[in-house]
Formats: sequence, C-alpha cells, structure tokens
Amino acid sequence: MIRVVLVEPEGEYNVGFIARLCRNFDVKELYIVRPKCDLEQAKNFSAKGLEYLSKAKIVNNLNEALQGVDVSLSTSSIADSQGDMLRKSVTPEEAAKAFGDRHVALVFGRESVGLTREEIEMTDFLVHIPATPDYPVLNLSHAVGILLYEFWKLRRKETRPKVSQDSVMLIEKYVRTVYEHVKRSEGDLDMYVALRRVLLRGIQDEEEARAVIRFLRKTYMRLIHEEE
Amino acid sequence: MIRVVLVEPEGEYNVGFIARLCRNFDVKELYIVRPKCDLEQAKNFSAKGLEYLSKAKIVNNLNEALQGVDVSLSTSSIADSQGDMLRKSVTPEEAAKAFGDRHVALVFGRESVGLTREEIEMTDFLVHIPATPDYPVLNLSHAVGILLYEFWKLRRKETRPKVSQDSVMLIEKYVRTVYEHVKRSEGDLDMYVALRRVLLRGIQDEEEARAVIRFLRKTYMRLIHEEE
Repeated sequence: MIRVVLVEPEGEYNVGFIARLCRNFDVKELYIVRPKCDLEQAKNFSAKGLEYLSKAKIVNNLNEALQGVDVSLSTSSIADSQGDMLRKSVTPEEAAKAFGDRHVALVFGRESVGLTREEIEMTDFLVHIPATPDYPVLNLSHAVGILLYEFWKLRRKETRPKVSQDSVMLIEKYVRTVYEHVKRSEGDLDMYVALRRVLLRGIQDEEEARAVIRFLRKTYMRLIHEEE
Repeated sequence: MIRVVLVEPEGEYNVGFIARLCRNFDVKELYIVRPKCDLEQAKNFSAKGLEYLSKAKIVNNLNEALQGVDVSLSTSSIADSQGDMLRKSVTPEEAAKAFGDRHVALVFGRESVGLTREEIEMTDFLVHIPATPDYPVLNLSHAVGILLYEFWKLRRKETRPKVSQDSVMLIEKYVRTVYEHVKRSEGDLDMYVALRRVLLRGIQDEEEARAVIRFLRKTYMRLIHEEE
C-alpha cells in the first residue's frame, strides 16, 4: 500500500499531474504538507485523478504525514555524496523490491530546493532516480511517476517472502537503543543509519528477522546489565 | 542511441517537460511532427533541457521522423486488445532489453487521441506502460519519462564499488566477538549465523561496510568496558 507525500509543492501542474499518476498506479493515499500552490488550479491537470485532490490529506508537518506507515522513503536528485551516509541512496528498483509489499510512504520535496536534511533524516531510506550526472534533476511529477511505476511493476508480480511489520519495527527499535548506548557523538549517527539500512535490505524472511532481533535484544540487555 | 519522436503534441508544458527529460536521460535526438502547440511557450517548462527545443527537428510526417533509425517503437495506453495483433505490446523493460543498444525511435502520440492505427503500423513494435486497467492513460510527458528511464537504466553500467575482503573479515570477526559476549548457550548460534549472513548480503559498498564495522566495534568495546 502506497502513500504519496508531497512537502510544500509549489507548482499547480505538478500537483495535478501527481493526482493523475496516483490514479494511474492505484495509490491509496495522497498527503500534502503545507501546499504552496493553489490546489483548485491543480485540478486542471489532474484529469481522472481529480478525486485524489478532493480527498488529499493536508497536514502541517512531515511527521504527521508519516504516521501509520511501515517504512518511509525520501527522494533526492543528489545522491552518494562522499562520506555522507545520510545521502547513501537506493534505486527505485531496490526500494520497490525491498518494500513493495509494505505500507510505504514516498516523500517528495519542493520543486525549488527538494527536501531539507532534517526532513531526509526523518525517513528510513533515501531513493535516488538514476539519470545523467550532468543534469540528474527531474521535474517533481516525473520523479513521482517513475517511482510509482517501479512499485506498480513489482505489485503486479508479488514474489518476495514477507518480513512482518512487527519485526521491522523491533529491528529499528533495537538498533536505535544499542546505538544510543555505544555512540560517542552525534557524528556516530551514520553508523546507526548504515546498520539499520543494511539489516532491512539484507533480511530475507521472518525466521532470519527473528534471529537478528534476538541477537540485538541480547546485546541490548547485556549493555544495560553492564551499566548497573 | 535514442530519438524521441512526438506526433502533433498539443501541450506546451508537455513538450517543455519532455525536452527536460531528454537532457535528464541523455537523449540524442528530438523530432516533432507537426507541433500543435507554441514551442516558444514550451521553453518555460524545459529548464536545462532548453537546448533540445532549439535543436529539435520539426518534420511534416512520421515517415520523415523515422528515417535512419534501426528500430521504431510506438507507444499506446491501449494494449493487447482481443485478437488485434497490431495492439500486441511489449513492456518498456522488454523494449529496453531488446533494443537498448540500437538506434531507437520512441514515438509518442497526441495527448487527446494518441497515435492513429496507420501511425502505429509504420513502427516496428508497440510499447504499453503497465498501469491500472481502471485508468491506464498516462499524461504524455510522464509516459516519455518512464520509457526514457527504463532505457537509461539499461544503458548505465551498474558498477557498484565492491566490499573489500578486509571489511568482510572484520565484520565476521566483530559479529563473532559480540556474539561470544551475549550468547547464553550454544543454541544461540543461529543468531550469529543469521546476523552475519544478513550483513554480508545487505552491505552494498565499502563505505557502508566501514560504518557497520564501526558500529560493531564500538558495541564490542562497550561490552568489554574498554575506551577506544
């Protein structure tokens, strides 16, 4: 199940086209954080996606827009900056393969400046659409279309064994708590980001997830014990 | 080498967005058959794809636009109509895999009525972008974006930096040592096996490996009360 989240979209035509794309690719939810354009005007570009603009959830911040999803993916035309773990990105294909069967929030930034670093940090993964390094900046609605298309392709042929939402949340919880005990400074954040991403990417089934959770929990208990 | 061919495009914004997409995905040629919109207006939507509008070849019929290519693919939101061979379509993925290394013309029809039967007959294959049967009609420029994205994925060589043998051995070493500190019985061995397998499967490059190794090492240090 897919939720499209637009953060402060500025162009009526983009919002309208995105509503149409939501209908084309059977998106379940459209959230808009602090729209900076006229949603009435946007309807002129939404064709048979009109309904999505009428029922879109307008919220005041990204946090609200991420409530209730299993995993959130932010998008950026900048990726893999040297030594910047936060910017380490996955491709739309990898994202669809890993999370296509979950309740996923796809988060898209402003046409002008994209998402802030803080907004990207609020999401679980960063997705980058491969394009020419010479000019990789896609127009907003076209980036949305390509991501929805990749997720749609996967939803047509469901294969991958499921990892439960509970397990995903437990893994995120224990990686975070262990991290809180071993970090020396905020500069260590990249360790946490990297380990969580690697685990969610690498785990193939529920049995494996359970074994990893036991490992993390025992490590956490041991760390707490050491502190007593 | 890709040639984008637009037949009687009607919307300035679509033509502008398509010029931008041509730049994003390094298209070589843009042909426009009998444009029905103002190409000057289109420039407002082309961003850094402006050059493509200036050098676009304006021709009088589709036949001219197909001169010199190895293979031509027409696109349609209608596909696989019963018993209509003309409408038998391939997916963007299949098209890219089959013709990605040839000189290909991707032909797109009018926003209003698409391509005529005659125009489709002039091309070698028909491509249909999978979308909800309920409303599979994509906006023109978004269909172009998805096709160009599929061809670009194939053209770009997937050269991920490999993870070094040193890092692999360090990961195994630290997972093992942390495990030795947290295990309660030999029955816990599966935790160790699972975590090591998941990490080695999930890690994508050296930088990510280094971050995970730092996480494991700091955890190990905390467990044995040592300061780094």
